[in-house]
Amino acid sequence: MTITRFSDLALRLLMYLGSRAEPMQATVTVREVAELFNVPYTHLVKVAHQLGQQGFLITTKGVGGGLRLARPADSIRLGDILRITEPSDAVIDCVTQPCPLAGACLLKGALDSAYAAFLDTLDRYTLAEVARTPRLQKLVSIKA
Amino acid sequence: MTITRFSDLALRLLMYLGSRAEPMQATVTVREVAELFNVPYTHLVKVAHQLGQQGFLITTKGVGGGLRLARPADSIRLGDILRITEPSDAVIDCVTQPCPLAGACLLKGALDSAYAAFLDTLDRYTLAEVARTPRLQKLVSIKA
Repeated sequence: MTITRFSDLALRLLMYLGSRAEPMQATVTVREVAELFNVPYTHLVKVAHQLGQQGFLITTKGVGGGLRLARPADSIRLGDILRITEPSDAVIDCVTQPCPLAGACLLKGALDSAYAAFLDTLDRYTLAEVARTPRLQKLVSIKA
Repeated sequence: MTITRFSDLALRLLMYLGSRAEPMQATVTVREVAELFNVPYTHLVKVAHQLGQQGFLITTKGVGGGLRLARPADSIRLGDILRITEPSDAVIDCVTQPCPLAGACLLKGALDSAYAAFLDTLDRYTLAEVARTPRLQKLVSIKA
């Protein structure tokens, strides 16, 4: 079971922003993050756009513009990020894969409970906590 | 975040077997289950093969042959099924998508904990419990 590539990029982008000395002041460019994580620039633009719309980051244009966190990193819970980046809260596809049990399925209920436990566990971690990853701090200090 | 189609089929197949009156005695054919759930026969053959190898079901050939549960449905926990059908216990791809943080990433640890909580929650449900889905019981009684 994997999260989408979109969620993956969202987490990496927010981690990078959160790891910076003044994440709500200093800006970084999408290109800088794309190069650092070796991910496609165009994908990251879409991710940044959605995270901006959902109030996780602020985008400014022009010289010196870029991305910065819209809220303190210790107020952003990991579960909240995935709640907006994952396309669905269903871990099994009962819609496009028709099933005679749809609507009365106890398996679906079990999987829904399990996914809720997954998100609840992620809510115990803030962006600030995971952004303290030692190697990330090192990369940031080299770039600074 | 979704489970793989392989896991999906494995769960549906085992649910169907577990819903039958004598799941360790009476056999069903892969074709019967494929038609019931409207899934490709060839995919289901592969799923049945792996579930057989892992001790969840027994396959017999010839006239009157088919599939049956290898163990009582109330001894099979849903988490145990996904532990063998999911290709990985990592919900984020740090290997084929290289990342400068790989090996020292606190995000990976958070996601691993969350996935463990997902499986732990599924372990609270047995196959016997989800196989009591009302509509499934109805389908089985019509087919019987």
